[in-house]
Amino acid sequence: MTTTTTKTKQFISADQILEHWQGHRNLTRRVIEAFPEKELFEFSVGGMRPFAKLAVELISIAGPALKGIVNEQIEAFSEEAFKPKTKEELLAKWDSETDVINEYFHKISEERFQETFNLFGQYEFPVYQNILYFIDNEVHHRGQGYTYLRALGIEPPFFWERF
Amino acid sequence: MTTTTTKTKQFISADQILEHWQGHRNLTRRVIEAFPEKELFEFSVGGMRPFAKLAVELISIAGPALKGIVNEQIEAFSEEAFKPKTKEELLAKWDSETDVINEYFHKISEERFQETFNLFGQYEFPVYQNILYFIDNEVHHRGQGYTYLRALGIEPPFFWERF
Repeated sequence: MTTTTTKTKQFISADQILEHWQGHRNLTRRVIEAFPEKELFEFSVGGMRPFAKLAVELISIAGPALKGIVNEQIEAFSEEAFKPKTKEELLAKWDSETDVINEYFHKISEERFQETFNLFGQYEFPVYQNILYFIDNEVHHRGQGYTYLRALGIEPPFFWERF
Repeated sequence: MTTTTTKTKQFISADQILEHWQGHRNLTRRVIEAFPEKELFEFSVGGMRPFAKLAVELISIAGPALKGIVNEQIEAFSEEAFKPKTKEELLAKWDSETDVINEYFHKISEERFQETFNLFGQYEFPVYQNILYFIDNEVHHRGQGYTYLRALGIEPPFFWERF
């Protein structure tokens, strides 16, 4: 778009961060795939949650959070809606959420990224900070998943392979 | 600044990503602090590197990479320049790099973020992607550090506390 308004020095565009996020989601998908079925749901280190639980947390944030932002609906965070029993089920949901994320992300305007929203009735921050948090939280938990894989003697996917 | 050029929909400004990054660096600093001296340099899970090694990798990327981008100098990546023997030494270097990052980050123009640079003579990507990679790589390795702390029975700092 052409603009004549006062703008700050841009770091990245909306399309660029969405592509970046979906690249991370591709990698997280590969990490889910790398776990043997049983260990995905049961294995962990130091009393932490198994990787399937971490993946359900990520699924319970991304799409639902974007819907909340777009519809300005404040609903409490919940991981109760989706309880996968197999890796296949988890991956299918991961993939269907890819489209939800694309659809709702595109509905957020440039101005909206800078507005404060009380996400899940709990996290009152500018929308851009909420979105960065979703991505960071995914990278953080996936780093834990890498450690689980290493502890299982399984080579994780390359960190830089995203597409 | 006021601009009349064609711009894409902005997600975040340069100042916002820098603040975001330094917030992450504050948290990583707390994770370094949380390790007992000996375990910082020796403990790991699944044959991975101890957290001090991971922190040295992060230190060897951020400041040197930004200098390379600003000065358009292609130098190979190296972790040889800094070999801390104590936690105190590691934290002191972490803090001095904070200023280096602030100084050099501010020298990158909006246009430059979109230009390709062959970082360390190895990673030929747009500058914005290189910078996102530094942050993601830090969050990734710190997630591994969280797992080490849990395996040691130590409560890690809150993920959302950045300042």
